[in-house]
Amino acid sequence: MSQSNVVYAAGLGVTRDSLFASASEISADLSARAADLDREGRPPIGEIVKLKKAGLLNALHAREIGGAGLDWADGLKLVRILARGESSIGQLLGYHYVNSQSIYWSFADQARAQVLGVETVAQNLYWGAAVNPRDPGLTLTRRGSGYVLNGRKSFSTAARVSDYINANATLDGKIANFAVPTDRPGYVANDDWDNIGQRLSDSGSVEFHDFPVYDEDFVGPPADENDLAPVLATFNTPLIQLVFVNFYLGAAEGALAAAVDYVRTTTRPWITSGVEKASDDPYILERVGEFTASLKASAALADSAALAVQTALAKGRDVTARERGEAAAEAYAAKVHATHVALDITARVFEITGARSTAEKYRFDRFWRNVRTHTLHDPVFYKAREVGEFVLNGTIPVVSLYS
Amino acid sequence: MSQSNVVYAAGLGVTRDSLFASASEISADLSARAADLDREGRPPIGEIVKLKKAGLLNALHAREIGGAGLDWADGLKLVRILARGESSIGQLLGYHYVNSQSIYWSFADQARAQVLGVETVAQNLYWGAAVNPRDPGLTLTRRGSGYVLNGRKSFSTAARVSDYINANATLDGKIANFAVPTDRPGYVANDDWDNIGQRLSDSGSVEFHDFPVYDEDFVGPPADENDLAPVLATFNTPLIQLVFVNFYLGAAEGALAAAVDYVRTTTRPWITSGVEKASDDPYILERVGEFTASLKASAALADSAALAVQTALAKGRDVTARERGEAAAEAYAAKVHATHVALDITARVFEITGARSTAEKYRFDRFWRNVRTHTLHDPVFYKAREVGEFVLNGTIPVVSLYS
Amino acid sequence: MSQSNVVYAAGLGVTRDSLFASASEISADLSARAADLDREGRPPIGEIVKLKKAGLLNALHAREIGGAGLDWADGLKLVRILARGESSIGQLLGYHYVNSQSIYWSFADQARAQVLGVETVAQNLYWGAAVNPRDPGLTLTRRGSGYVLNGRKSFSTAARVSDYINANATLDGKIANFAVPTDRPGYVANDDWDNIGQRLSDSGSVEFHDFPVYDEDFVGPPADENDLAPVLATFNTPLIQLVFVNFYLGAAEGALAAAVDYVRTTTRPWITSGVEKASDDPYILERVGEFTASLKASAALADSAALAVQTALAKGRDVTARERGEAAAEAYAAKVHATHVALDITARVFEITGARSTAEKYRFDRFWRNVRTHTLHDPVFYKAREVGEFVLNGTIPVVSLYS
Amino acid sequence: MSQSNVVYAAGLGVTRDSLFASASEISADLSARAADLDREGRPPIGEIVKLKKAGLLNALHAREIGGAGLDWADGLKLVRILARGESSIGQLLGYHYVNSQSIYWSFADQARAQVLGVETVAQNLYWGAAVNPRDPGLTLTRRGSGYVLNGRKSFSTAARVSDYINANATLDGKIANFAVPTDRPGYVANDDWDNIGQRLSDSGSVEFHDFPVYDEDFVGPPADENDLAPVLATFNTPLIQLVFVNFYLGAAEGALAAAVDYVRTTTRPWITSGVEKASDDPYILERVGEFTASLKASAALADSAALAVQTALAKGRDVTARERGEAAAEAYAAKVHATHVALDITARVFEITGARSTAEKYRFDRFWRNVRTHTLHDPVFYKAREVGEFVLNGTIPVVSLYS
Repeated sequence: MSQSNVVYAAGLGVTRDSLFASASEISADLSARAADLDREGRPPIGEIVKLKKAGLLNALHAREIGGAGLDWADGLKLVRILARGESSIGQLLGYHYVNSQSIYWSFADQARAQVLGVETVAQNLYWGAAVNPRDPGLTLTRRGSGYVLNGRKSFSTAARVSDYINANATLDGKIANFAVPTDRPGYVANDDWDNIGQRLSDSGSVEFHDFPVYDEDFVGPPADENDLAPVLATFNTPLIQLVFVNFYLGAAEGALAAAVDYVRTTTRPWITSGVEKASDDPYILERVGEFTASLKASAALADSAALAVQTALAKGRDVTARERGEAAAEAYAAKVHATHVALDITARVFEITGARSTAEKYRFDRFWRNVRTHTLHDPVFYKAREVGEFVLNGTIPVVSLYS
Repeated sequence: MSQSNVVYAAGLGVTRDSLFASASEISADLSARAADLDREGRPPIGEIVKLKKAGLLNALHAREIGGAGLDWADGLKLVRILARGESSIGQLLGYHYVNSQSIYWSFADQARAQVLGVETVAQNLYWGAAVNPRDPGLTLTRRGSGYVLNGRKSFSTAARVSDYINANATLDGKIANFAVPTDRPGYVANDDWDNIGQRLSDSGSVEFHDFPVYDEDFVGPPADENDLAPVLATFNTPLIQLVFVNFYLGAAEGALAAAVDYVRTTTRPWITSGVEKASDDPYILERVGEFTASLKASAALADSAALAVQTALAKGRDVTARERGEAAAEAYAAKVHATHVALDITARVFEITGARSTAEKYRFDRFWRNVRTHTLHDPVFYKAREVGEFVLNGTIPVVSLYS
Repeated sequence: MSQSNVVYAAGLGVTRDSLFASASEISADLSARAADLDREGRPPIGEIVKLKKAGLLNALHAREIGGAGLDWADGLKLVRILARGESSIGQLLGYHYVNSQSIYWSFADQARAQVLGVETVAQNLYWGAAVNPRDPGLTLTRRGSGYVLNGRKSFSTAARVSDYINANATLDGKIANFAVPTDRPGYVANDDWDNIGQRLSDSGSVEFHDFPVYDEDFVGPPADENDLAPVLATFNTPLIQLVFVNFYLGAAEGALAAAVDYVRTTTRPWITSGVEKASDDPYILERVGEFTASLKASAALADSAALAVQTALAKGRDVTARERGEAAAEAYAAKVHATHVALDITARVFEITGARSTAEKYRFDRFWRNVRTHTLHDPVFYKAREVGEFVLNGTIPVVSLYS
Repeated sequence: MSQSNVVYAAGLGVTRDSLFASASEISADLSARAADLDREGRPPIGEIVKLKKAGLLNALHAREIGGAGLDWADGLKLVRILARGESSIGQLLGYHYVNSQSIYWSFADQARAQVLGVETVAQNLYWGAAVNPRDPGLTLTRRGSGYVLNGRKSFSTAARVSDYINANATLDGKIANFAVPTDRPGYVANDDWDNIGQRLSDSGSVEFHDFPVYDEDFVGPPADENDLAPVLATFNTPLIQLVFVNFYLGAAEGALAAAVDYVRTTTRPWITSGVEKASDDPYILERVGEFTASLKASAALADSAALAVQTALAKGRDVTARERGEAAAEAYAAKVHATHVALDITARVFEITGARSTAEKYRFDRFWRNVRTHTLHDPVFYKAREVGEFVLNGTIPVVSLYS
């Protein structure tokens, strides 16, 4: 279940440039195999190993502990690059970034966070999570000097490929947050994710059967539902939303690239078009131009929102709720835009590729299925509403795992 | 391969009302099984038998010969109703209507057309075609007192379920049109249709190996490519385009109905919505209203275009090219509109059903995949252009198998 | 203020055909002068005289009393035809139809309604209204054997051209509905309508200064705010909404016609287009085709919704709230669709006419300004929501002057 | 006609910050008066004086000669800021930037360019142009030791406010480019711009009556129509297109700001909304969020395209045609996107402000009229096509005054 025994000399010789080069290479390889991978829809165990070997999992950790020291602007671009090849892999890289970096923000005991960070880099650990707030159901019970965790989560992205997870559970009527390795006894990832998109995202159910948890695993003391988390600890939401943005856009960029390649090589000119090559068709050219303009705009906003969130995050424990809120509003505007653009383009590339491109062997519909599936994570109209609240009423987004 | 031995007492007791009732019943049954049928993607042999038993194949034939005597306005509505349940079945019914009715318009020898009509009704024959003009490749060669047909067509809708087909082939440098039963030796339907949508449409390749053809099968004398067909014989194109319109709209209506049902029964209200049921969510309600308005508008145009084409067709051999062109322009405007509406709604119903509706078991993406696949039959921008030519320059569509 | 002294031999020789011919003629004349009329933005006193002379005001009244006996389907088409030339005139004709026909539905005393109808036809009276529910402010006070009306309405369409009006006012804490001629003393129409669109709609404020009202003017006894009106008396709302639909569509049809004419005669081909005439430009042709398809769809829905409302209305006092609600939902779906289509096309016709068509002398922006102004009458998202309520929850629209 | 006698101590104490502050201040003042200015539609002579006094005209000139030394990224942002208040003023500032900076790229004799630059800064000159390639008509004739210019240009933005202009004319069958002050005898600006939008842009016709031109005015030797300009001299097109982008977006930002302000202060909640303030309406909030997301995306692309063009421009005479083309493709993608976004938002802000916001006194339609008018400068479908050519076929835009 866990690959924590797969340890690589990550960080040795890894640079920003080499990481981007590796990401592009892995993405191109994914692209070539994506139709098959999508058809199979299996947890991408081998793909995660490739990310580990390339040092991509550790990209955001500090250089001092063997990471590459990249910031979120770069991290999110790496997500986008991978998503061009296969958007589930982009999703998994991005989720790992948020889940593994959040230990630095959330642990009350910073020394403990550092120990976890060092272990993560050294052992090249993949971090997942089991925290979906719309799907409660985990319970901690005291047993001996520690606790046992029991219960089930319906959807846990990266359930099988995770080496470590963030989780939460009820304990004595409060909510306890903790981080645990998945190789303890009692962790069961069911591999039952079978949806129309993001089919490699390994988002099936997990069960915990008397899974042991210890005090040192706790992020801090269990809290009441209404306790406010420190501002810094709430950055996982704008960041995970930016992960969404970037793998949506990566999927759309991948769709357009695949379609453009197909038009150049395979699409036949329409019989009344008067042109000899489909790539000279006035309507196809116009659409490629329109799709490009939309994608560039959405990517430019994604990048500027990443910068806004990164800048706020860099203030560390001094960051205010207002600063977090303003940065989050940028991220959520980017989310709204990327949702529309990615859905539109992945659905419409067929207009340029034509009838024969619907053959099952190409599975060109996967781009739309992938974006369609995950853009429902939280309703885009409520995200737009939050942005509207900010602009119209000056109200910052109410902190939750969705905003 | 052929079901011509399946003969039913069609026409006995069949009325317009009973046909509409049967269509609705079959459609509801299809709807309940559509996810499985789509997953399997097999030629719908059993479904065609149901259409035969219900008398639906003979609906447009004259009452005198055992048909139900419905006009095209009704026939196209039957296509739409069936498509709500499963759009491939709607497509197959519509293609049959055009292929079987066109004998009355195309045969130079009207007596021969009548003989074929009587045989069709009496034996409840399904009519397909092998005439795709972008995929030539059939050749007739004289042999003995007749001919043999050889060659291959890449895509032939209803290849396996057809009892009779319209086909064309080159003969001595001219194009011969003929109608033949598929149970003669040498007809091979390959069942190799495997596309992302219209997966039950049985649109695989066919091959002819020394398939015998006789003079009486000929629609008329072989013609030069530039010979103009009689106006009446060109109505199959606006009619087949209206078939498209109606099964696109049926698919979208089916998608909305399925989504509305899911919202009522399954979708959970969003956590910040403040409503207790998803069906009270203001954004969901607005979208249902918008989708409904679009669908109603497109269906209203589909119906009025059907009336226009039916009216022109009813002029018989007196119909002029201008009259055909004006009616065709109506049909093509309906085609343009239905294309946009059906794509939009089938893609967007997920906005109301929410994240969990992407589970593979529902296959709610099939509606979009079906519409996406067939709307590429001929590019919508060129159809819009033809309508524009008519409105801006008064130019009627240039007759072809696409317009 | 009133033109009630202008009496024509309406109904003599007037037929459905002659009315349609007159409407087309007046519309064409309006179209030629519309830029000037829009610039001036004056109450269209002369235009209303033309409608009177043509017999158009009496088109829906029964033939027995000198009307033309047309139904609403025809009446709404006449509105659309006039709106092609100038949408305010379409609006004014439609408002008159609703205001003058509603006497037959609303008066408790049918004999009184008949007397008013006869007078209306004989004297060719234009009917307006002063009933905006969002702008209360009229008060009835008893004086002598009757009442006096005092107060102000901010917006009263046809304020200056009305011969008769429907109005409501508070009386002893209840709401009294009544119909009165405007030539009584104390009626002041301020001619202060100055908005960016529908500039000829004469929608300025009206004041009543001790304006006399008599018992016989009352539609029925004054009612509590929560008293339910008889179902038949609530048809003015779906009908006025259909009036909106038809003059929005007329405006858009007028815009497209004007643009097509301009492209044919004036637009120069783009320098890199490779065509010699703008009317051969592939993008212009495609857009004309798209605009046409949208307009035809919206008009087809407008017509079918008119039929639905007409059919329910024809049941008279037997019509149920459910039947009214179902017909209204059709009308409101048409309203939603026409709103989008008319806004889209009136804004986008410039894409085909090009840069020089923005010269003030053409005032081609008037089409968009007209539609933009009136489509705000009630928010389109709440209309869509009402349609959604009907489809998703089976709830019929809650009766009000807006739905 | 010329304000060249208005000399200010520009550059003294002017900093980047002070220029941005001045631009914001002037923009806010314009916004408050924009309805009146639009109604009058006069050449904005006083407004240009304000830009001069603030040092804004010299912002891009080198600090060595008294400019502020800003780059294009900043210059274009200043254009956008001004356009928020009144888009014609944004247009005029941007046109001046391109026309005055282009002397450094176009003059073969760099010393002459420097002399002109120094004079421009010292005298605070506004630079216009008379070069529209779709409207030829100026002719140079030799007279004495120099030439006289005769002819007419239909549209010359800033005709009356220009102190200096770039112009071209035919001379002996070749095309001569030159730069001349407008205070020489024979320059007639007709103040006949009267269009539905950009009404302050002073874009009327100009005439030249034996207007004297001298050899030193020439940018270089007259050229054949097919002579290729040096790459650097072709940057005015991507830059002027970015000027368009920024004043379109400024107009839309201004529209949204005005609408948001109006909703907060004036719009009444809809009667069935259930909210007490329009600013709490779910549909209004969603729309504000959507508009914001679109605007932010388009502005982010505008900024990144500005950086791309600035970077290429900074290569000076070494810049290659390919580098120029790649940067231009970025600019043109931004143009396509900004066109759609600005049209959409300026048309749709009325959805949130509501019916009464159509009063003529607000003239809120001016935002749409302004954007609608200028976005027709060159057809957006051909710009999209150029972007498509670049992405699909690797073809850089063919250099012209439009691309």
